[in-house]
Amino acid sequence: MGLNGPRSWLLIAGLTGVVGAATAPLAAQPVSGAAVRDSVRAYRAAHELEILRELAALLALPNVAADTESIRRNAEHIQALLERRGVNARLLEIEGGPPAVYGELPAPGAERTVMVYAHYDGQPVDPTEWIGAPWQPVVRRGPVGAGAEVVPWEQLQAPLDPEWRLYGRSTGDDKAPIIGWLAALDALRAASIPLSVDLKFFFEGEEEAGSPHLAALLEKHGALLEADVWLLCDGPVHPSRRMQVFFGARGTTDLELTVYGPLRALHSGHYGNWAPNPLARLVELIASMRGADGRILIAGYYDDVRPTTEAERAALAQVPPVEEQLRQELGLVLAEGTEPIAAGILLPALNLRGISGGHVGAAAANAIPVAASASIDFRLVPDQTPARVREQVEAHVRRQGYHIVREPPDLATRLAHEKIARLEWGGGYPPARTALDLPIARAVVEVIEETLGAAIVRMPTLGGSVPMHLFQDLHGSPVIGVPIANHDNNQHAANENLRLQNLWDGIEVFAGILARLGAVWR
Amino acid sequence: MGLNGPRSWLLIAGLTGVVGAATAPLAAQPVSGAAVRDSVRAYRAAHELEILRELAALLALPNVAADTESIRRNAEHIQALLERRGVNARLLEIEGGPPAVYGELPAPGAERTVMVYAHYDGQPVDPTEWIGAPWQPVVRRGPVGAGAEVVPWEQLQAPLDPEWRLYGRSTGDDKAPIIGWLAALDALRAASIPLSVDLKFFFEGEEEAGSPHLAALLEKHGALLEADVWLLCDGPVHPSRRMQVFFGARGTTDLELTVYGPLRALHSGHYGNWAPNPLARLVELIASMRGADGRILIAGYYDDVRPTTEAERAALAQVPPVEEQLRQELGLVLAEGTEPIAAGILLPALNLRGISGGHVGAAAANAIPVAASASIDFRLVPDQTPARVREQVEAHVRRQGYHIVREPPDLATRLAHEKIARLEWGGGYPPARTALDLPIARAVVEVIEETLGAAIVRMPTLGGSVPMHLFQDLHGSPVIGVPIANHDNNQHAANENLRLQNLWDGIEVFAGILARLGAVWR
Repeated sequence: MGLNGPRSWLLIAGLTGVVGAATAPLAAQPVSGAAVRDSVRAYRAAHELEILRELAALLALPNVAADTESIRRNAEHIQALLERRGVNARLLEIEGGPPAVYGELPAPGAERTVMVYAHYDGQPVDPTEWIGAPWQPVVRRGPVGAGAEVVPWEQLQAPLDPEWRLYGRSTGDDKAPIIGWLAALDALRAASIPLSVDLKFFFEGEEEAGSPHLAALLEKHGALLEADVWLLCDGPVHPSRRMQVFFGARGTTDLELTVYGPLRALHSGHYGNWAPNPLARLVELIASMRGADGRILIAGYYDDVRPTTEAERAALAQVPPVEEQLRQELGLVLAEGTEPIAAGILLPALNLRGISGGHVGAAAANAIPVAASASIDFRLVPDQTPARVREQVEAHVRRQGYHIVREPPDLATRLAHEKIARLEWGGGYPPARTALDLPIARAVVEVIEETLGAAIVRMPTLGGSVPMHLFQDLHGSPVIGVPIANHDNNQHAANENLRLQNLWDGIEVFAGILARLGAVWR
Repeated sequence: MGLNGPRSWLLIAGLTGVVGAATAPLAAQPVSGAAVRDSVRAYRAAHELEILRELAALLALPNVAADTESIRRNAEHIQALLERRGVNARLLEIEGGPPAVYGELPAPGAERTVMVYAHYDGQPVDPTEWIGAPWQPVVRRGPVGAGAEVVPWEQLQAPLDPEWRLYGRSTGDDKAPIIGWLAALDALRAASIPLSVDLKFFFEGEEEAGSPHLAALLEKHGALLEADVWLLCDGPVHPSRRMQVFFGARGTTDLELTVYGPLRALHSGHYGNWAPNPLARLVELIASMRGADGRILIAGYYDDVRPTTEAERAALAQVPPVEEQLRQELGLVLAEGTEPIAAGILLPALNLRGISGGHVGAAAANAIPVAASASIDFRLVPDQTPARVREQVEAHVRRQGYHIVREPPDLATRLAHEKIARLEWGGGYPPARTALDLPIARAVVEVIEETLGAAIVRMPTLGGSVPMHLFQDLHGSPVIGVPIANHDNNQHAANENLRLQNLWDGIEVFAGILARLGAVWR
């Protein structure tokens, strides 16, 4: 659909008075992908530092979803950035959750509406693991692991080496696309290239916390959120460094699992063959759930896994191999699974995020600890659901002889059950998949390829989880992922970073979509 | 042997001028065990607060072996306590290690020399796990787990409830025996009961660190350290609360085991079926080493285990059952092993002291961590040796496909081996055992039983590890353990504590040995 009402790119540009001087009527002949690329590239080359500083200012705002004050500062900052471009922006509020930033920018004569999704919150940080401060973004001359040093902001001069990287929480995941879309708007405007689609933005503030309020927020504000396609700008490009689009995302649910030993820590010598060690029990329980090859050993776990389609297999066959390069990069001889990554992520995964119990190293004491915990994230593929996975996991834990509790057990509970496990489930959402042969799926691939002048990777699914299913379910619109971050961005970990070339590529891709999708999508 | 030279209890008492007024010649008829008990009990009842304050002052000195300044303050403090009793005390120094506190107190006419061993250092603490400060001792009205509150020092009044407990690091392990022996000397002196044996003290300062300098220290100062028997005052009494003596100790060695994943933490969604998870590898490796019942699965691990003797089996048969009581106390339905504790600790044990990798709880991130570590302590029984155990463990790790390194692996090492494990061994010592049917073994049991007027428990071995073998090897003297701490003292853990009745019992037992062992040991 197109956006109704009198507002349009030109009108808004005229009314707000904050945009650049260059405006232009909708061209009779649509501009070519190559022309878009060249114009945008020239604009970017002339504005590299400006774009980077705008991103750094956004990155300087701490953005862990639980930090409600900071998270709102992010939302207001982004709203102001949108408004500065003439986007009609507002915060969509929901009780108990962070606001989403929403924006609309109509294009005269456009017939389709594109919704852009990104999230402005970031994963929690352990500052002791970072080489710098997570929310004090800095540019380095390359990957920090290679010893690349900081280039102070005042010494940066364009043209910047595109292999340099910007460090900070959410550089790659997921603030870069927000700035990328705004820079694309600026570049098109500077070149007087009109938008070919109506544009909407939806920037979420709790994706890394599992999006607990997203469903309610979408329901509450659903009338605003109609679109012909959702573009999810989250995740990395292909490890071959080729741009990729993805047509699915794994679902997720996570579990905090605690098993119990004696009520008080015991001397491991005096009680070391008698009192059960909770770490040993945890090891045994985890080993019963997951094979050395990553295969999940829980009964029936693969029953709900949907077979791949022919179109998906065809796309997989054209994914460039990256495994050898990754092994070199990551210092790995052996992968866990035997399949290529792109095929492996079509399967469910059980990842151990952490194990903790007792102490190691200098703090280790000769004691049997009282409890041991594991944090697990499950990745789901169609047609698994979080509810069904939780059932299967709990049935498995019970089959191992455990009584399941939700709170730390009291003495009576302890004395009533041979083995006790506390299971606390986090949020989660189901997987989603868009068919690769839909017209919009083909159009997005075509526009990006003609803009870049290069073939891109079509991934049937992203390995990670984004709440794609909610957008699909809202109005039945297809959802396609258009990520821009480098694959080695240390997403979710310390020293998260963005390779500058990835941002530059992203701006071109986004501009290509804005300028060309309306013409190509027939 | 007796102590040579002119010094004796009476002479020293006279010369130093710091001891109490009451002194007495060696009685022609040795005093009975019951008479010793009654005298000592009366003395203690009149001096409870004094004794407790003397212990608290010692406990207030931080005593982790690695903290060399604090550890020396402990040694000097104890030396002064000994000198105040007329004991000829000095510090035995060794390059690079803490001093041992040595003391001599001859008894006129005594034919045997008893060496008393205890250690003044304590296990490291994690203050966040303590309900109070580890080195600010306080009395509580019972076990902290039962909610017992603190009784401020200024409100304490004798007679103290003997079920009250003193909290602080090393209350039970192992400063209580030091004060217990000094109070026994004071009590005998107050009752004019002479010593029946020459007495020596040897208080170690790095037992909880694995006694890395003890062998060298014993060798250097060996000439001073001759004795007819060593009494090791360390460890707890029997969980039935009956006094026990032990005739052996398990050996020990400990291991920090680290396995490696990708060089940088990876997004668990994008790489979650491909990149090996080091926690999963660690779980698999540990599960290969240790069964759910605590049985060690390493090939040949039980080959060196010496069969039990008839005397040991007879002693075991008389050990009171405590398992049911312990299960209630500890909130356990199931023990790990099927045998009673006393029989179980005659076997080797593999204890998981800690596992660490990634993060759990609020800090958990959806990432594959770069490494995972386990800290393991091995308990050894005759005739295992630390060297042989290390060989067997390393051979096992290699059989699981691991390349063993001693330092974090560099990229070249990572790319040369499919699986890499870093093994760092801590100190350790072999197990030891004294025959239960030696005359001294029988005499110690007899003296304690007649002093207390009750049967005691004879344990073929202590489950814990004390460097008994070094004392045995030094001059071939038998070594017997005479512990006094309550079994539920939270030894090696947070909220370590001493039940007051255990200290009072210990003083009587030590006084009985001093007054009676020379007469009974024939």
